[in-house]
Amino acid sequence: MKRYRNGEIWDFETAEESGGREVILGLDGGTTSTVCICMPVISMSDPLPDPLPVLARAAAGCSNHNSVGEDAARETIEKVMADALLKSGSNRSAVRAVCLAVSGVNHPTDQQRILNWLRDIFPGNVRLYVHNDALAALASGTMGKLHGCVLIAGTGTIAYGFTEDGRDARAAGAGPILGDWGSGYGIAAQALTAVIRAYDGRGPDTMLTSNILSTLELSSPDELIGWTYVDPSWARIAALVPVVVSCAEAGDEVANKILQDSVEELALSVKAVVQRLSLSGEDGKHSFPLVMVGGVLEANRRWDIGREVVKCILRDYPGAVPIRPKPLGPIQCDFPTGVSPWDSFYGTDCRASSFSRVEPAVGAALLAWNSFMNAR
Amino acid sequence: MKRYRNGEIWDFETAEESGGREVILGLDGGTTSTVCICMPVISMSDPLPDPLPVLARAAAGCSNHNSVGEDAARETIEKVMADALLKSGSNRSAVRAVCLAVSGVNHPTDQQRILNWLRDIFPGNVRLYVHNDALAALASGTMGKLHGCVLIAGTGTIAYGFTEDGRDARAAGAGPILGDWGSGYGIAAQALTAVIRAYDGRGPDTMLTSNILSTLELSSPDELIGWTYVDPSWARIAALVPVVVSCAEAGDEVANKILQDSVEELALSVKAVVQRLSLSGEDGKHSFPLVMVGGVLEANRRWDIGREVVKCILRDYPGAVPIRPKPLGPIQCDFPTGVSPWDSFYGTDCRASSFSRVEPAVGAALLAWNSFMNAR
Repeated sequence: MKRYRNGEIWDFETAEESGGREVILGLDGGTTSTVCICMPVISMSDPLPDPLPVLARAAAGCSNHNSVGEDAARETIEKVMADALLKSGSNRSAVRAVCLAVSGVNHPTDQQRILNWLRDIFPGNVRLYVHNDALAALASGTMGKLHGCVLIAGTGTIAYGFTEDGRDARAAGAGPILGDWGSGYGIAAQALTAVIRAYDGRGPDTMLTSNILSTLELSSPDELIGWTYVDPSWARIAALVPVVVSCAEAGDEVANKILQDSVEELALSVKAVVQRLSLSGEDGKHSFPLVMVGGVLEANRRWDIGREVVKCILRDYPGAVPIRPKPLGPIQCDFPTGVSPWDSFYGTDCRASSFSRVEPAVGAALLAWNSFMNAR
Repeated sequence: MKRYRNGEIWDFETAEESGGREVILGLDGGTTSTVCICMPVISMSDPLPDPLPVLARAAAGCSNHNSVGEDAARETIEKVMADALLKSGSNRSAVRAVCLAVSGVNHPTDQQRILNWLRDIFPGNVRLYVHNDALAALASGTMGKLHGCVLIAGTGTIAYGFTEDGRDARAAGAGPILGDWGSGYGIAAQALTAVIRAYDGRGPDTMLTSNILSTLELSSPDELIGWTYVDPSWARIAALVPVVVSCAEAGDEVANKILQDSVEELALSVKAVVQRLSLSGEDGKHSFPLVMVGGVLEANRRWDIGREVVKCILRDYPGAVPIRPKPLGPIQCDFPTGVSPWDSFYGTDCRASSFSRVEPAVGAALLAWNSFMNAR
């Protein structure tokens, strides 16, 4: 196979091939991290095997082109795919289908641009799919079926919904300038703002001041100005979310208000999608999957943002069936063994889900697998 | 005189010199524009001559190093100083003092860095002063005296105050990430957010949608996401403020709420400074100058943000004497003649001011002139 740009990424392919096993790649690319999994092409069955066979998992950093630029995003994606293939003992000649689900894919032009360079990497007979990462997250909660609503809240946030008859809608996901206030970036930026306001006399004193300054090893709030200018990357700012949660848990009113406002923002995104798609039916009580992913929702702290968002949504849409996949796959050397990858969501606090749960990269692979099997 | 970096900027100095007249440079550098004026060294008098003798005025773009980087900021500043000297028929050998008042100067380290390269441009006997641009704006309203409070609201916003005994305080001015919501950037970002929220079902419909889309020549709100990512410069976003004002004037509730919130934010910055410095005395009624500058406050529209901010401040501090300098100098080839440069502020709506008014670059020159005369 011809080597293209970043040829060295594919150097491992000079090694012996792995005996003709056909594989599928699923990639979940976000602003904070990118995960690629490699699974074998299995035959269709209902239900799917549990756990799903996953041959390998590889992880890397940001692959949102809006955040790091086109070249860096492409290199990250290409490298993490190569890593997953290498770990699985396969190479590109074994690949039958690839699904990239990447944040920052908002328009057909984004999709086409990525498809173009993906086509340079894989030969013409490989099926290629490019979507927004929200799609993979939904598929991860529904085992490849596109129905329901997904809420992602990590560094950024977006709500995406799909109906069984193929309609879709989204809310938020517009980036920090355009007011994604429930996101990790939004929460942390509000906390930093609260520190500045307390310092210059525009707002109440808050525990956030000492906790954020000590976390960042700064001595005065006015040093935050320089700190944000040095490197305004969203992920760097969003990394302060745990500090906000700690302050809220310790009773700080300012931190509590920021988290409560964020809960309402996140719930509002979901409600807007559910309403536009009538996902809950005419009586408002129909059941639909509500997949929730991302660091802000998975923090698993006493002040549990994800749980509060679910409560807020269930008040209006009691038919929502929350599903929260854990970032764990069945075969992963880099995670502790003995941990069930599909923990149930909040035990019995919320309605039990009838869906198996996998991580978004597996959701992406399932989308590719579904399309590939249907086309074969 | 030796030529330094960007030597070509000073090429005009090879021309004949202008006969030994001593001059002072005052520079007001902001995120949107930079203005340098050249005035002769005049003898001290009380009152100062009105109008002040200004030999030349030159303008350029952004000189905030946080916004365009150190090199571009330096080049802009150096070029606009050279332009002012060239227009005045002087050159560097005539300069006795320079005051640069530049936004983004927040720390002694910022000040020292600029002083270092400024020293490369001017010989050792020239007095050099570097301040935050708020200082020049205040001096422009008080004819060189540092007393009172200044509110700047252009692309960014900051409130700065000084007492007669030399204490100072500031509020806001922390940049877009840290919540300068009353700024031009803040107003426009909230308007863009409102468009996205209306589009995806999270907020009420607003006239802002059609007006902003047609201004930007876009066809759908989701294209705003790409638009903000292409070039996230604050000034580009702040340029949408007039659209927000137009929508508010036409009765749009969303736009009106954004402007009203911004008025309260801007007034709050001033109140925080006035309170910390006790500028209004123990009875809260003492008189103090309140200098107001920047595009957001000078828009001079029916929905007049500056007037509303003043009203809001006067409710708490009736002693505030609002002063709003016009961006006009007495000797300017690039402005229409016959226009009085020191328009009174809002006619009789507010208290008359006892101060002459000049533009911030002249304020910077007055600061340099004061220090130079006192030291001579």
